[in-house]
Amino acid sequence: MENKLRDEVCQANIALGESGLAPLTWGNVSGIDREKGYVVIKPSGYPYSQLRPQDLVIVDLEGHLVEGYLRPSSDIATHIQLYKAFPEIGGICHTHSTFACAWAQSGKEVPVLGTTHADTFYGPIPCTRDLSEEEVKEAYERNTGKVIVETFSGKDPMACPGVLVKNHGPFTWGTSASAAVEIALILENVCHMATLTYVINPTVKSAPDYLIEKHYKRKHGDTAYYGQKGPLPPKK
Amino acid sequence: MENKLRDEVCQANIALGESGLAPLTWGNVSGIDREKGYVVIKPSGYPYSQLRPQDLVIVDLEGHLVEGYLRPSSDIATHIQLYKAFPEIGGICHTHSTFACAWAQSGKEVPVLGTTHADTFYGPIPCTRDLSEEEVKEAYERNTGKVIVETFSGKDPMACPGVLVKNHGPFTWGTSASAAVEIALILENVCHMATLTYVINPTVKSAPDYLIEKHYKRKHGDTAYYGQKGPLPPKK
Amino acid sequence: MENKLRDEVCQANIALGESGLAPLTWGNVSGIDREKGYVVIKPSGYPYSQLRPQDLVIVDLEGHLVEGYLRPSSDIATHIQLYKAFPEIGGICHTHSTFACAWAQSGKEVPVLGTTHADTFYGPIPCTRDLSEEEVKEAYERNTGKVIVETFSGKDPMACPGVLVKNHGPFTWGTSASAAVEIALILENVCHMATLTYVINPTVKSAPDYLIEKHYKRKHGDTAYYGQKGPLPPKK
Amino acid sequence: MENKLRDEVCQANIALGESGLAPLTWGNVSGIDREKGYVVIKPSGYPYSQLRPQDLVIVDLEGHLVEGYLRPSSDIATHIQLYKAFPEIGGICHTHSTFACAWAQSGKEVPVLGTTHADTFYGPIPCTRDLSEEEVKEAYERNTGKVIVETFSGKDPMACPGVLVKNHGPFTWGTSASAAVEIALILENVCHMATLTYVINPTVKSAPDYLIEKHYKRKHGDTAYYGQKGPLPPKK
Repeated sequence: MENKLRDEVCQANIALGESGLAPLTWGNVSGIDREKGYVVIKPSGYPYSQLRPQDLVIVDLEGHLVEGYLRPSSDIATHIQLYKAFPEIGGICHTHSTFACAWAQSGKEVPVLGTTHADTFYGPIPCTRDLSEEEVKEAYERNTGKVIVETFSGKDPMACPGVLVKNHGPFTWGTSASAAVEIALILENVCHMATLTYVINPTVKSAPDYLIEKHYKRKHGDTAYYGQKGPLPPKK
Repeated sequence: MENKLRDEVCQANIALGESGLAPLTWGNVSGIDREKGYVVIKPSGYPYSQLRPQDLVIVDLEGHLVEGYLRPSSDIATHIQLYKAFPEIGGICHTHSTFACAWAQSGKEVPVLGTTHADTFYGPIPCTRDLSEEEVKEAYERNTGKVIVETFSGKDPMACPGVLVKNHGPFTWGTSASAAVEIALILENVCHMATLTYVINPTVKSAPDYLIEKHYKRKHGDTAYYGQKGPLPPKK
Repeated sequence: MENKLRDEVCQANIALGESGLAPLTWGNVSGIDREKGYVVIKPSGYPYSQLRPQDLVIVDLEGHLVEGYLRPSSDIATHIQLYKAFPEIGGICHTHSTFACAWAQSGKEVPVLGTTHADTFYGPIPCTRDLSEEEVKEAYERNTGKVIVETFSGKDPMACPGVLVKNHGPFTWGTSASAAVEIALILENVCHMATLTYVINPTVKSAPDYLIEKHYKRKHGDTAYYGQKGPLPPKK
Repeated sequence: MENKLRDEVCQANIALGESGLAPLTWGNVSGIDREKGYVVIKPSGYPYSQLRPQDLVIVDLEGHLVEGYLRPSSDIATHIQLYKAFPEIGGICHTHSTFACAWAQSGKEVPVLGTTHADTFYGPIPCTRDLSEEEVKEAYERNTGKVIVETFSGKDPMACPGVLVKNHGPFTWGTSASAAVEIALILENVCHMATLTYVINPTVKSAPDYLIEKHYKRKHGDTAYYGQKGPLPPKK
């Protein structure tokens, strides 16, 4: 099982590198084995294109090293907080994609301006509060995770699978590492469209609630009818 | 004949995927056999690069399955409404291209600011009204088609081969599936230029009517003199 | 000599297609044999990637066909006006590049905001006046050329090798067809930077005259010291 | 040693060409051999893709030619001033990247809006003052270097490894030629994000000082814990 997860997380990191969402080494993807409580994550500062499954680092949910000869991503403690608080997620992705970072730097949530957004995010994409000086100094990465969890207090993280960390950038998640990367790509598109929409119409309002509802439910849950029932064909 | 149409619609969908106008599976292309009343369309949620002619779905103008082992695009009912109302069109394309979606999200029509626009669209590119809650709940995709048709009431859809669906994105059409994809690309360019034009000059006015007339007629109708008389050479 | 010019204009058109400055068939490049008074130009609406030297069209300065089995670019009459009025130019390029078209649509000249501009354009890049309805109806393409020439009245076209045609797009020129394409690329970069500069600082002023002077003269004329004295090495 | 440095500076210039930060020949990279006081730099106006190690030019810190059959970059005197004033730097990169040039043209420093910035630049990225007419006429490139040095008076150039030269563009530096190119890429990303951030939120404030401190120190100095302890694997 670890080998399968190593392979998947390795492929997801390579896909992240190729996506352009994480220039240089500005991002990381992890996956979790819920039975064992093991998190598989990219090594810190490591080039995506060079990554092999054996280079990934495995840690437990206390952050202790289980296996690996390299340092894990410096954001590992953030990932662990999210895995602990959001039991349904199987993978997490962090990037420094341009438009999502710009929204994070602006300190604003991304309102639901259209169906591209509503197909994946059932409501605005929130931006966290500032971490306090104490939170940064005491345990920056762990407290980043805690502030994300606080932001989702009372909300379903699977219905809004991403967040903007203020003055930093996005974290996204999904049922797997590769799903988290796909959502990072969607988030970047949504942030790009939202930026342009405000340029074209500075007083634009959110899309109607019933349209958001329709599009989200068209793709998610019992009433979903988008896509195929069975698995898609393997890649050519 | 169906095989030829299957091939063409398949190629048009693959071209859409390669164009970047429809990230992930955010778009679909269809074509119609007017004699039989059969619509050939992309299967829902299916990756463009994997598509083979036999994977396409054929439905009639009532939406009944004629042939295919996969679900048709979830937007099939929108396509059918357009084929019924616009008898001259042979193909339809839907995308989530960034700039066209931004205009759709802004709720504004795209005025004719220059000849890139006027070469293809003989007037502003309209944005539909909001669908009502009832329209969304009753038959969302079919009513999307009806609202597009309503938007073109009294207008020639061949002289303005595209529309922005409010809070959603563009639909374009043409004499064939591949022509519809080409118009989707033109629309994205036009929306990109229009966005920048307002950034540079927020009080810009539309291009003069006689210039729009000249450019549109240079490329369309009896007085056209752009391009060659015969067919272009086959691709190298 | 015609064969050499055919080859060069063919390569310049292919380079234009690959540059992204002219999506679809939205642009054309020509070159002139000043001795014979022959202009070699792209055929109208023809795909760049398919172009062979024998597909180019040769016309004289009265617009009469000299050689070719295809229609010349619909903008041929504009090119001819420029060749007649600007005796130093050897090639002309027309594109629908996004940022240059946005400035043309905005109706504004591009002021000299920095050295990227001043290295090639010794002053603002002008935007033409509107053509009158009569000018458009009587001989649109020829009058476009005449209005460009009017815009350069009293100015040296070699010191400002490009123009924005209002509500249309850019024309650039140089000592050869390939030089004109390179200037079209520079113009697009300059327009991109200028757009962003106004976004960052809406009240920005032009660069100091002495800086413009220095940069232009560093690359042009007797005092130039940029680049090498001899020819550059052939392409690998 | 010169051969090793020639190779490295050659590779760094080729990487710059491939990066898109320096269209045409709009940029240059140099490296220094501190023991001998020799600077290795790109030849002026030379295409990146054609560059071989033997084409590079070697000059001493007085600007005298040591070795080379081509003219050095016209910006060589700027590089020399920086090498003289900043003894820790081993390489310098100059580009005309779009967003960095737009900030340089706007005449504004780039404030620290987020962690992408703070990971590399420990404070705002400054923009120089205008050069005076006398400074431009007397020794433009040397005085450009002097004005950069003046801008860093009392500041640590290694903690802010780049600058915007007013109305011109960026210079970046690092421990080596390739490091300087990487910082040029980071700077362009930072300027892109900053531009968008102001579009989204025109009244945005800088990131908190303690967050900037945390991110910069996470990657630099004794307390750094980002990345791996040993060297990264060789490229596949």
